[in-house]
Amino acid sequence: MSAVNIKICDTINKLGQNAYNAKFELQKLSEAEKNSVLLKVADALVEKAADILAANDKDITQGEANGMHEGLLDRLRLTTARIEDMAEGIKQVAELPDPVGRILDDWTLDNGLKIKKVSVPLGVIGIIYESRPNVTADAFSLSFKSGNAVILKGGSDAINSNMAITEVIRKTIEKEGLNPDFIQLVPFTDRTAVGELLKLREYIDVVIPRGSAGLIRMVCENSRIPVIETGSGNCHIYIDKTADINKAIPIIINAKTQRIGVCNAAESLVVHEDIKDAFLPELHKAMKEHNVELRADELSIKFLPEAKPANEDDFGKEYLDYILSVKTVKSVDEAIDHINKYNTGHSESIITEDEEAAKAFLKGVDAACVYVNASTRFTDGFQFGFGAEIGISTQKLHARGPMGLKELTSYKFEITGDGQIRG
Amino acid sequence: MSAVNIKICDTINKLGQNAYNAKFELQKLSEAEKNSVLLKVADALVEKAADILAANDKDITQGEANGMHEGLLDRLRLTTARIEDMAEGIKQVAELPDPVGRILDDWTLDNGLKIKKVSVPLGVIGIIYESRPNVTADAFSLSFKSGNAVILKGGSDAINSNMAITEVIRKTIEKEGLNPDFIQLVPFTDRTAVGELLKLREYIDVVIPRGSAGLIRMVCENSRIPVIETGSGNCHIYIDKTADINKAIPIIINAKTQRIGVCNAAESLVVHEDIKDAFLPELHKAMKEHNVELRADELSIKFLPEAKPANEDDFGKEYLDYILSVKTVKSVDEAIDHINKYNTGHSESIITEDEEAAKAFLKGVDAACVYVNASTRFTDGFQFGFGAEIGISTQKLHARGPMGLKELTSYKFEITGDGQIRG
Repeated sequence: MSAVNIKICDTINKLGQNAYNAKFELQKLSEAEKNSVLLKVADALVEKAADILAANDKDITQGEANGMHEGLLDRLRLTTARIEDMAEGIKQVAELPDPVGRILDDWTLDNGLKIKKVSVPLGVIGIIYESRPNVTADAFSLSFKSGNAVILKGGSDAINSNMAITEVIRKTIEKEGLNPDFIQLVPFTDRTAVGELLKLREYIDVVIPRGSAGLIRMVCENSRIPVIETGSGNCHIYIDKTADINKAIPIIINAKTQRIGVCNAAESLVVHEDIKDAFLPELHKAMKEHNVELRADELSIKFLPEAKPANEDDFGKEYLDYILSVKTVKSVDEAIDHINKYNTGHSESIITEDEEAAKAFLKGVDAACVYVNASTRFTDGFQFGFGAEIGISTQKLHARGPMGLKELTSYKFEITGDGQIRG
Repeated sequence: MSAVNIKICDTINKLGQNAYNAKFELQKLSEAEKNSVLLKVADALVEKAADILAANDKDITQGEANGMHEGLLDRLRLTTARIEDMAEGIKQVAELPDPVGRILDDWTLDNGLKIKKVSVPLGVIGIIYESRPNVTADAFSLSFKSGNAVILKGGSDAINSNMAITEVIRKTIEKEGLNPDFIQLVPFTDRTAVGELLKLREYIDVVIPRGSAGLIRMVCENSRIPVIETGSGNCHIYIDKTADINKAIPIIINAKTQRIGVCNAAESLVVHEDIKDAFLPELHKAMKEHNVELRADELSIKFLPEAKPANEDDFGKEYLDYILSVKTVKSVDEAIDHINKYNTGHSESIITEDEEAAKAFLKGVDAACVYVNASTRFTDGFQFGFGAEIGISTQKLHARGPMGLKELTSYKFEITGDGQIRG
């Protein structure tokens, strides 16, 4: 191993140890103490905005020099207003109820043992993310409020911004006489660092990747630590034969075009053959108006004059663009099978006036969020009323769908007796 | 890759595909249909006992030829009575409430969207285990009842027994006109097979290893599929300065000696210095009577005439034997720190008459089950009243502590609207 790599390994290992030690201290803080720290961190970020902006300037200059395109530069760029938004977000987290210490269940055994199932922090969370530096503040506030120490690995493009934000947070925590290792940032841009981080099963309880499909795949394939997969969304809308077209069209426009680059945007329509004559011409009009290209199967393309033929690949694709595939089916069961074959377990919607079809769809479709007569765009921690969101899980273990503060907790059993022994 | 390995890869991959396809069929069964299959499987196992015993004989003969020691042979051996017990276990699972379809939460948003959080099967479960062939029937019944297709990889010692049991179950399912791939057994004893199985992230939702620490470590280190770690138990009992010695001694005897080879047995005592004079001589007597060897730290050894000196290794060791380490501390906080340093997150107990000490211990100790004045031996799905147990989780993600049927489920959000779009 090269000297550089040895240095990376040692540093990453130390981050793990530090976080592991810090978690016990963090878990002793009361709700009021945690909220007070959060409010101070929010204020400090605004006070130190100039330092953060200066660091961000370095990242932007570097990005421009590297030929980063405008969309990415925009995600990377901080402004005073954006820093104020960050601070506002932290204040909102302070106002949310403490997810730790909830009694999830409570019962007494015949032998008199009293069992309480109580929510507790996960311990140490690793969050691996890409460009946007505001995730740094966000991830800290949610981890901290839920009693977890956090190790952050941001994108290399944003390393200066992330270091500046982390520094402000750590100094604020230290000023309160507390352990700054409640938050630590991996200070390397090297990929080796991620590999090392993903080995620290002994210190880190869960890793959450946030970002592109490539990043998430890399983390899932290499992590020895349990991962919560926040996957991509190949979201479908199924137009049943009894669909109300006046509901269907606005829902499709919303789900496809309100924000094209997000995981809860619709990517594919599934259309019952019996409604094709009435529905597809309306679809054509609406999509033309919104500049959405259609990729249609053999049957539907006859009603969609400007559509391109869809191939097999189209049905499995998350376009994140003004493109929508169209597939016709003969029944709700065929729609369910098609969706279960191609979806990513994110969000799927049926447009129907038939209660039985709605029931079959809700039960049969295998996804985190299944909708009846609504846009898939609602799959979001804030929309769901969680008051926060650390990501949207597309796996089934631990948490599925939008994850708020509660999803950053585990539980323990507290069992109180009076000398009971097992017979 | 060798021809043998290619064959293993292909077969394992096919098992994954089969299970993936079968899960959709399984999820359509009603509670009554599932219970009816379970009862028929229970009857079939008893009817076909002779076939299973004949297969088991082969394993036993092979085991004897390989010089397997009597303890392991006993775990491997089936008898008519043990097969009847297996069948009885399956009948009991049939009687448990269906863990699927529970409404876990339920709310309405301001925009009128109704959100229901409903329990659903995980999908496909992989279970990797060692010697005892009864796990085959057990793992099937719990997976099936919770709506999950299961792929089993048993120990190579028990391959004939496991194949016979699986065959009886598959034939029974097939006779009901259902898909036998609800249960599949990996038909190889080769380790390559496990490696291949652990790659099938696309088909398998979770892997649960059951067995030795070595097996569990191997699975955690190699799996690309989320794992529920059912780890070892280095369980402590802390004797506080206010402990009632008349409660402490029977609890220690029970936790240490009732069954020495299990993960919820006590392995270490932590003793407050203020109680050493009164407590340690009683401990000496009781442990001598039960043939338990003590490994004591510098202070406690003075009161324990037959103890050996404990070294650092002793405190981290799961003896699974008639051995108990003893460590003295000056406070409940020091006890908590010691336990958090050496424990495996399984089960820990405090013996105290002081409510404040109990509270501090319950909050501060990081373990799945934390007891006050009770034996650690109660950490068990049946003792907890779950009616079943698939294992005891020592990780924090998804499930912690004893896992019953509910822990084999995930959830989905069912969202019903009337045309809602996101603003």
